[in-house]
Amino acid sequence: MRVKHKKWADPLIAAHPEMIVTEPEQVKGHWQDRFTKAQPLHLEVGMGKGQFIIGMAKAHPEVNFIGLEIQRTVAAIALKKALAADLPNLQLICGDGSDITTFFDAHEIDRLYLNFSDPWPKKRHAKRRLTYRTFLAGYQEVLKDQGGVELKTDNMGFFEFSLQSMNNYGMHFDGVWLDLHNSAENDRNVETEYEQKFAAKGQPIYKLSAHFN
Amino acid sequence: MRVKHKKWADPLIAAHPEMIVTEPEQVKGHWQDRFTKAQPLHLEVGMGKGQFIIGMAKAHPEVNFIGLEIQRTVAAIALKKALAADLPNLQLICGDGSDITTFFDAHEIDRLYLNFSDPWPKKRHAKRRLTYRTFLAGYQEVLKDQGGVELKTDNMGFFEFSLQSMNNYGMHFDGVWLDLHNSAENDRNVETEYEQKFAAKGQPIYKLSAHFN
Ligand SMILES: C[S@@+](CC[C@H](N)C(=O)[O-])C[C@H]1O[C@@H](n2cnc3c(N)ncnc32)[C@H](O)[C@@H]1O
Ligand SMILES: C[S@@+](CC[C@H](N)C(=O)[O-])C[C@H]1O[C@@H](n2cnc3c(N)ncnc32)[C@H](O)[C@@H]1O
Repeated sequence: MRVKHKKWADPLIAAHPEMIVTEPEQVKGHWQDRFTKAQPLHLEVGMGKGQFIIGMAKAHPEVNFIGLEIQRTVAAIALKKALAADLPNLQLICGDGSDITTFFDAHEIDRLYLNFSDPWPKKRHAKRRLTYRTFLAGYQEVLKDQGGVELKTDNMGFFEFSLQSMNNYGMHFDGVWLDLHNSAENDRNVETEYEQKFAAKGQPIYKLSAHFN
Repeated sequence: MRVKHKKWADPLIAAHPEMIVTEPEQVKGHWQDRFTKAQPLHLEVGMGKGQFIIGMAKAHPEVNFIGLEIQRTVAAIALKKALAADLPNLQLICGDGSDITTFFDAHEIDRLYLNFSDPWPKKRHAKRRLTYRTFLAGYQEVLKDQGGVELKTDNMGFFEFSLQSMNNYGMHFDGVWLDLHNSAENDRNVETEYEQKFAAKGQPIYKLSAHFN
C-alpha cells in the first residue's frame, strides 16, 4: 500500500516517543525495558496500519508485541490506533525491515510475523521479497533458536516463492494451510487489514508456519 | 479408484511377462536389462490405468519408464494400453509401493512420480499416504543421490501434508506450483487421467518437485 504523505504524521510520531521508536538502533538489546513486563517478544515486519499487531496485543497480554513499518505516514496511522488502544504490551517502530539486525540483538525475538508482504512479482525484484534468503538470514539472527516465522498472504506467486525459499534455506515447516479461512487453524486467527479485504473477495488465504534450526 | 475385478485381468497379465512384472523382487538390481537401452530410469508409484506413464514414455524416448500399480485389474487395464502403444522404454509392475526397497536396488532409480495419490484424509490413516515419512525413506533408498520426486495432486489436504512431510524429512524443494495449469510449467506437463478429470471441473492442480540430499 502506497499512502500519500500526511502533514500530521511526523509531528504525531515526534510527540509519542513512548509508543513509537524512530531510532531503533538505540534500543537494540533493551527492548524489554520499553514494556511494563519482560515476556516473550513477537515482531511483525510490515505491519501496515496495525490492525493485526494491535489485535494480537489485545488477545495475548502474556506476549510483548512490536510492529515495524517502513512508511512514516502508514506508521503514523498505526500509531493513532495504538494510542487509542492503550496497551502496555505494544510498541511500534518506524524503520526498514532490511536493517533488522541493527535493531535487535541476536536471539532477542521469539516470533516473527509477515502478513501480506509486498509480493514483488517480477523476477528481477525477487531480492526485495521479505522471504528472500538475505531477509531470512536476518530473521534467523534476531530470532531465538527454535524461533518461529508465521507468514500469511493471498498472493499465490509470493506463497510459492516463500515455500521454496524457506525450505531451501533449511527452515522446518510446522504447518501449511492453502485455505486458512476454511481450516481449523482459523479459530485462533487474528485477521489483518489486507486479509479482510482479500477474504471478502473470496480469495483463499495461505499460511505457513516454520522455524529455523 | 476402486475397480471391480475383471476375469480377463489375470490371464492377460500372465500372458505378458515381457511387459509386466508380477515378481519384481526377482528383477531387483537388473531393471535396465528389461529395456532395449540402458538410460535414466523413472518410476511412477500408483500409475492407475497408465495414461501418464505411457504419455511420458512416448514423449521421452531417452528415458526408461516403469509404472507400478497395486490393483491387478487396474494394472491389467494399463497393460492393455501399454501393449497397444508398443514402446521399448516402458515396463509395468503389479505390486505394492510399500515394498519398493525390495523391488529396486539402492540408487537404481533416477526420478519418481506420485500422481493424484489416494489422499487418505483421516488423520489416523496418515501413515498410508504415499508421502508419509516411511514411504519417503523408501524413495530415498532407491533413488540416486540428488534423485528427484515429482508430485501432482488436486487434493488440498494431501498437498499441505506432503509439503510439510517432505520438508520435515529434509527434502529440498525445486519448485512449487499452486495452479499448475495456469503456469509456465504446464508447457511440458503430461496429464494424468485424474488430472484431466479434476482440471475439467476447474479445480487447481498442485505440483511439487523436490530432491533428497
Ligand atoms: C501490503 S501491506 C500489508 C500490511 C499489513 N501487514 C496487512 O496485512 O494488512 C505491506 C506493508 O509492508 C510495508 N513494508 C514493505 N517493505 C517493508 C520493509 N522493508 N520494512 C518494513 N515495512 C515494510 C509496506 O510499507 C506496507 O505497509
Ligand atoms: C487416485 S489413483 C490415481 C491414478 C493415476 N496416477 C492418475 O493420476 O490418474 C491412485 C492409484 O494408486 C494406486 N495405489 C495406491 N496405493 C498404492 C501402493 N501402495 N502401491 C502401488 N499403487 C498404489 C491405486 O490403486 C490407484 O490406482
